[in-house]
Amino acid sequence: MISRPVTTASVSAKGSLEALSQREMHQLSEAGASSVYTLFRQCALAILNTGAHIDNAKTILEAYEDFEVRIHQQDRGVRLELINAPADAFVDGEMIASTREMLFSALRDIVYTGSELGAPRIDLSSSQGITDYVFHLLRNARTLRPGVEPNMVVCWGGHSISSEEYQYSKRVGHELGLRNLNICTGCGPGVMKGPMKGATIAHAKQRLIGGRYLGLTEPGIIAAEAPNPIVNELVIMPDIEKRLEAFVRVGHGIIIFPGGVGTAEEFLYLLGILLHPDNQDLPFPVILTGPRDAAPYLQQLHDFVGATLGSDAQSRYQVIIDDPVAVSRQMNAGLKEVGLFRRERNDAFHFNWLLKIDEGFQHPFDPTHENMANLKLSRDVPAHQLAANLRCAFSGIVSGNVKDKGIRRIEQFGPYEIHGDTAIMQPLDELLKAFVEQHRMKLPGGRPYEPCYRVVT
Amino acid sequence: MISRPVTTASVSAKGSLEALSQREMHQLSEAGASSVYTLFRQCALAILNTGAHIDNAKTILEAYEDFEVRIHQQDRGVRLELINAPADAFVDGEMIASTREMLFSALRDIVYTGSELGAPRIDLSSSQGITDYVFHLLRNARTLRPGVEPNMVVCWGGHSISSEEYQYSKRVGHELGLRNLNICTGCGPGVMKGPMKGATIAHAKQRLIGGRYLGLTEPGIIAAEAPNPIVNELVIMPDIEKRLEAFVRVGHGIIIFPGGVGTAEEFLYLLGILLHPDNQDLPFPVILTGPRDAAPYLQQLHDFVGATLGSDAQSRYQVIIDDPVAVSRQMNAGLKEVGLFRRERNDAFHFNWLLKIDEGFQHPFDPTHENMANLKLSRDVPAHQLAANLRCAFSGIVSGNVKDKGIRRIEQFGPYEIHGDTAIMQPLDELLKAFVEQHRMKLPGGRPYEPCYRVVT
Amino acid sequence: MISRPVTTASVSAKGSLEALSQREMHQLSEAGASSVYTLFRQCALAILNTGAHIDNAKTILEAYEDFEVRIHQQDRGVRLELINAPADAFVDGEMIASTREMLFSALRDIVYTGSELGAPRIDLSSSQGITDYVFHLLRNARTLRPGVEPNMVVCWGGHSISSEEYQYSKRVGHELGLRNLNICTGCGPGVMKGPMKGATIAHAKQRLIGGRYLGLTEPGIIAAEAPNPIVNELVIMPDIEKRLEAFVRVGHGIIIFPGGVGTAEEFLYLLGILLHPDNQDLPFPVILTGPRDAAPYLQQLHDFVGATLGSDAQSRYQVIIDDPVAVSRQMNAGLKEVGLFRRERNDAFHFNWLLKIDEGFQHPFDPTHENMANLKLSRDVPAHQLAANLRCAFSGIVSGNVKDKGIRRIEQFGPYEIHGDTAIMQPLDELLKAFVEQHRMKLPGGRPYEPCYRVVT
Amino acid sequence: MISRPVTTASVSAKGSLEALSQREMHQLSEAGASSVYTLFRQCALAILNTGAHIDNAKTILEAYEDFEVRIHQQDRGVRLELINAPADAFVDGEMIASTREMLFSALRDIVYTGSELGAPRIDLSSSQGITDYVFHLLRNARTLRPGVEPNMVVCWGGHSISSEEYQYSKRVGHELGLRNLNICTGCGPGVMKGPMKGATIAHAKQRLIGGRYLGLTEPGIIAAEAPNPIVNELVIMPDIEKRLEAFVRVGHGIIIFPGGVGTAEEFLYLLGILLHPDNQDLPFPVILTGPRDAAPYLQQLHDFVGATLGSDAQSRYQVIIDDPVAVSRQMNAGLKEVGLFRRERNDAFHFNWLLKIDEGFQHPFDPTHENMANLKLSRDVPAHQLAANLRCAFSGIVSGNVKDKGIRRIEQFGPYEIHGDTAIMQPLDELLKAFVEQHRMKLPGGRPYEPCYRVVT
Repeated sequence: MISRPVTTASVSAKGSLEALSQREMHQLSEAGASSVYTLFRQCALAILNTGAHIDNAKTILEAYEDFEVRIHQQDRGVRLELINAPADAFVDGEMIASTREMLFSALRDIVYTGSELGAPRIDLSSSQGITDYVFHLLRNARTLRPGVEPNMVVCWGGHSISSEEYQYSKRVGHELGLRNLNICTGCGPGVMKGPMKGATIAHAKQRLIGGRYLGLTEPGIIAAEAPNPIVNELVIMPDIEKRLEAFVRVGHGIIIFPGGVGTAEEFLYLLGILLHPDNQDLPFPVILTGPRDAAPYLQQLHDFVGATLGSDAQSRYQVIIDDPVAVSRQMNAGLKEVGLFRRERNDAFHFNWLLKIDEGFQHPFDPTHENMANLKLSRDVPAHQLAANLRCAFSGIVSGNVKDKGIRRIEQFGPYEIHGDTAIMQPLDELLKAFVEQHRMKLPGGRPYEPCYRVVT
Repeated sequence: MISRPVTTASVSAKGSLEALSQREMHQLSEAGASSVYTLFRQCALAILNTGAHIDNAKTILEAYEDFEVRIHQQDRGVRLELINAPADAFVDGEMIASTREMLFSALRDIVYTGSELGAPRIDLSSSQGITDYVFHLLRNARTLRPGVEPNMVVCWGGHSISSEEYQYSKRVGHELGLRNLNICTGCGPGVMKGPMKGATIAHAKQRLIGGRYLGLTEPGIIAAEAPNPIVNELVIMPDIEKRLEAFVRVGHGIIIFPGGVGTAEEFLYLLGILLHPDNQDLPFPVILTGPRDAAPYLQQLHDFVGATLGSDAQSRYQVIIDDPVAVSRQMNAGLKEVGLFRRERNDAFHFNWLLKIDEGFQHPFDPTHENMANLKLSRDVPAHQLAANLRCAFSGIVSGNVKDKGIRRIEQFGPYEIHGDTAIMQPLDELLKAFVEQHRMKLPGGRPYEPCYRVVT
Repeated sequence: MISRPVTTASVSAKGSLEALSQREMHQLSEAGASSVYTLFRQCALAILNTGAHIDNAKTILEAYEDFEVRIHQQDRGVRLELINAPADAFVDGEMIASTREMLFSALRDIVYTGSELGAPRIDLSSSQGITDYVFHLLRNARTLRPGVEPNMVVCWGGHSISSEEYQYSKRVGHELGLRNLNICTGCGPGVMKGPMKGATIAHAKQRLIGGRYLGLTEPGIIAAEAPNPIVNELVIMPDIEKRLEAFVRVGHGIIIFPGGVGTAEEFLYLLGILLHPDNQDLPFPVILTGPRDAAPYLQQLHDFVGATLGSDAQSRYQVIIDDPVAVSRQMNAGLKEVGLFRRERNDAFHFNWLLKIDEGFQHPFDPTHENMANLKLSRDVPAHQLAANLRCAFSGIVSGNVKDKGIRRIEQFGPYEIHGDTAIMQPLDELLKAFVEQHRMKLPGGRPYEPCYRVVT
Repeated sequence: MISRPVTTASVSAKGSLEALSQREMHQLSEAGASSVYTLFRQCALAILNTGAHIDNAKTILEAYEDFEVRIHQQDRGVRLELINAPADAFVDGEMIASTREMLFSALRDIVYTGSELGAPRIDLSSSQGITDYVFHLLRNARTLRPGVEPNMVVCWGGHSISSEEYQYSKRVGHELGLRNLNICTGCGPGVMKGPMKGATIAHAKQRLIGGRYLGLTEPGIIAAEAPNPIVNELVIMPDIEKRLEAFVRVGHGIIIFPGGVGTAEEFLYLLGILLHPDNQDLPFPVILTGPRDAAPYLQQLHDFVGATLGSDAQSRYQVIIDDPVAVSRQMNAGLKEVGLFRRERNDAFHFNWLLKIDEGFQHPFDPTHENMANLKLSRDVPAHQLAANLRCAFSGIVSGNVKDKGIRRIEQFGPYEIHGDTAIMQPLDELLKAFVEQHRMKLPGGRPYEPCYRVVT
């Protein structure tokens, strides 16, 4: 472990912070046992660590194991005392304003998430209840702004990409920004930062005050993908499924840039939802794009969708190679349609109530051998269901190849048995191989890629 | 019943409104049985009726019995459809902006109050729990603004006062406004309006943008004391006790103008709290003031406090006759002390956590014969307890003289038997008589005032 | 001379002030000889004296003869040191913000007026040149705001009126303000203050930030009609004719309230302009209004116009008695027409370029016996010319009756000989008599009114 | 000549534009003869051409020879009709907001510069008069903001630099921005853009609204160095000497990045002023900086100053290699000193009145053989005079080597005869040679560098 420069400081909220009640203060300060405190400490550390390039949450936590945050009530509101905090978050001893804001956003979300969960209005056992919960969390974070025409573009893609892909994402962000559109990402580096940076410059050119750079994250991911300081609205959702639902309900359109397996999984999640028969007529602009060099990658992904989910699925998105202006124009046109549709259907601009999300997408998938065996990966199941299942299979295979828990499972019980059509499993296999070749998926110890499953027909 | 001009219109929130979830929308639209809808309709009617001078909630409700409000979700957020609404709320067919804002404030509070009540964080069985509840309601209404020096002056007094007293309250408000202080009242007419109007002009002279005119009301009182349109922050607390607690926790000082029995009751409530031993060192500026003509009234009130609660109680406030400049300077000086105190004690500027409120003050008092008989009105009980009991006795006697329910109780069971010292009961009796003489308490049918109790020694 | 409380203080501009060059600073500080300094001192004193009710400029100047203002350059811009200033301009030692702003407005205008005069772009020998000068002065004061729909309502009327007329002007201002209209007056007390006060309250109700209360004055009048502190834009024009031109070029409509001879003169000035054939099709809403009690006065004025200028002149304005709502609605409707007209003709909303003002109206009239004898007051001259001549005659007669210089002229040379039709002179005579009876024109030493002219036919 | 995409559009000012008088409109529309129109057309074209990378004003003007701009008065103010304008200034047919703003800034400055020149307050025959003129132009452009602590950092350097130098200037801008400092440049590309871009991102991170990116240009240079769209305040000074004076009076400190001969000339101009005995105690932070690769260049410049002007001159600036954080910290520390000094001396923060500029620096230098022969380049003249003379010699030699007019002069009359010490002329010669080698000065036709002068001793 390398020792890192640390600093100790004390910051107060400026303006935006909610006041905290004494009970809430109390909860947060029970340093020892309190899970609320632990959660906040972990998020705070990730936020303070912004700008540093560490891919591994564990490393960060270990690097600053004597980091502490104490919460004080005082005349002017809540004050945070930060002990042994990463020094990078400060400029000449002064905390960067965006970092300070994000600390208090994290405080807000963690306090609220905790206390809200028990409320009778929240029923996590039903699909509608989960959606309501997502709504309440976003509303409390002031993310929902009634009365604004659809203009929130979600950008998905890798946090660790080539310099060329990063520059491209900036150029796309710049063109979006010139059209006064806002950006929402997972709030980390790479594709999560590039479009925001481009849009910041473009918004300055357009004299747009109040451009939004919305970052949606969750405690399990924030450390590995520390919020970039362009983010001016940070929301910490309680888990990955709520975060994904937040993306598709708050975003008015989605641009998918090159990324790793996570990006592919998100893409399948999105297709699974859009292919649901209830969503058939619902406009939702989706664009797959990247620079010239990423063309083969995008083609492969596109072919994979065609081979498995069919041309209907392909028709739910456009592929645009190396043309930020075209991407922005198409997105803009798509947003206009979204606006018209919501106006007609009296759906809110600020929250996509009409989008049907199957309950299956709202719960995590645990890739046990049994769960994997139960997946139906056949042309017989409806496309939206197949997309959901593919997403699970994809997730499981990645786990079996890369993740500790998954590798151990394979070692113990042998390869997954999957009941899938070869016509589906083979393209999946090829896609994964390609990811490895393109260094988009790293196998532990540099092992060669080998399927961790076999198809049972 | 006189027929009144009505109008039908549709309004959307501008900017500030929270988005509503589908479940919340649904609750509000269940017109028939739902108490949430009934409550909202009643508050909406009161708000729309602003400016009209009706002292009687029942009359208003009857005058517009075919008034309806429908709540729609649409692209730009919530829209209210108002059917057969009082025409006074409109200028050339356009709703006055402050009225529109207040409608959406009512919506916000009523939705939140309902759903919050069931939350596990709210424990109405403990004093601390009630205070937390008050805090949550105020925070949700954005009333709590961390980081601002103490500047919120509560003005209490009658809603139906002489023109001279009204003009005086305007002059005081003007002087407070010239010192950049904000005003909080019960939000109706009379003393609840005058200081706000004076402060509005003064804030304009001081080029103060964002002057606050905070109105705290509750559903039982809003119809009789319709919010005046200067109010730019309206909060509807669930009941009278929460409303009183909100006044003393959010206000940094209190000015008491001439008023009726309600004002006297509030004054006793305040003294009861300030006399609590835990609050002995807590600075809380209180000023009793009025124009020259009101001097006898103020003297009487002052004497009554002296005779019953003693000079200690008298030392917790100042009496200033006909001198708005002196009132404002004294208040300003008091607020500075409050600021120092909270800074030293690390108490929030925006919420008076350190003020001890006995649980007795947090619950309503029901003047049954039994409850009245149990009151101890003796010099033997501690002053703060005596103040609390006096407030109850006062409330009961007023009820027995003026209110339907109370009069019927007296008719049925005879006069209340009160265990009180004559030295306490006699001044109380005289105070009430004076109120009648000064037309500050109106007896039904013009009956002569007659005590509805007898002292049991 | 009564001694008045004075104070000595130092104020800096906040935000809005232009920086001054060293040369400008130098000019202003040449206390002795500099007329620029004298002018500024005089205006500053009038501004500081706001709120005091003195009708006489000379009295004010004498009351504070040891008042001094020193101008300093410092790091943060210009600072004014005020020595022996009227104490009323301060609240607890702090200058009222509007007063401070007005001081710096006066500084701006006096510096600019001086230096602008010599510029080659200003040609005061032509009508167009004078208009350009007025334009430049207003532009420099930031009074001209391109892109805003016509909404500036000029209110003319007396500065010393009955309480009832004052209340009425407030009510009219309130109704105008509820319609989001702005107010422009001569910036003194009475009718110059009432509508601004009413509009301030109404703008607060309409949540209108940035309501404009424009005061146009000139050095000769500012002391007698000290700017009221509601004024949030003060412009000091160099003389009375430029001020009148500013009113009609910047205002989009004019409301005339009861007033004295000055108001009547302004009314004739306005009619003279509107009756010019070039202005025949130019919409310009004018409303004559007052409370019930002022009806006879308004009728008299109206009859006088009919008798002298004819029904065409009467058709250029409306008379509305005791109905603020009707006044505001009519004005609003008139403003809409003004907007349409300017849009069609490509005239600026912010400056009425198309209004033709005869050069005669742009120069002062000096009532010598010769000038009076040369006036043609006959039905033979065109109506707009007659109105101009009437205004001069009116001005001369008032001077001969009331003003020092005029009275001495009459004593020396006998009554003015006027070449006028009896049909014109008689109504004029009656109007003046009525003014005396209604205490709207005060004769020196309480002398009876006697015509100071004779008609030569 | 390549044909370029053009577009025809019509734009109105938003908010900030001054209204124009009819006379001003008239001047601007006299398309044929008017030099005002020609000047505006030329600047407008340069502004619209932003983003395009052409080094040559003539080329631009020729590329769009059928470009026209027509100025219309209309209801909402001035409207510009642009015919055959460069298409790059538009996004989907909509003009970029910053471009629109800059067009109206140019209009403002060109109208004002013209009309101001003739004003009696402007005396261009004295040094003080020229400074006043510069002050008036800046004030009219709202560039002078009283009351703000020194925070305006001027960045000088080349518009055509290596990618590495550009990235470095961005990094420095980012560090300045993180310290809430503002940027002022010559407003073109290269070093004139990089620091602004970096600061924009940093200001976003610091949540700074209203960061200033001030561009100072003049008609002779604007076409070759088209304003970059980050500039949010554009001022067009009438000529190069006024522009240089504006830089040193408005900027609180100066950073010099690598550049060409122009940058070196500016550096000598600055040293000449700072070495004036009157400025001896005046703090003015100057930093010479660049990335690692530019170290030899910076060293050479530094050595040249040492060899010619001596170590006193060297002590007026710091050299910092490849360390944006150190540059920003040093600048920040320097600005604090500037603040203290102005506070003590009562000099304005917003305009450096105390800086002595010799009249020689306020007039252009024309490098005729006679003027060159008259320059004293000897250790005998005082350092500040020598710096001024060196700047002239430098300018002349560059002209003799590179510029049409200069080359022809040399061909006609032979080399310049300069009365200089070899100890001065030799380092100058070497510096120029180095510029050629580093491609910082391009000789026409690729000729080898050859001195166009000889030293006469």
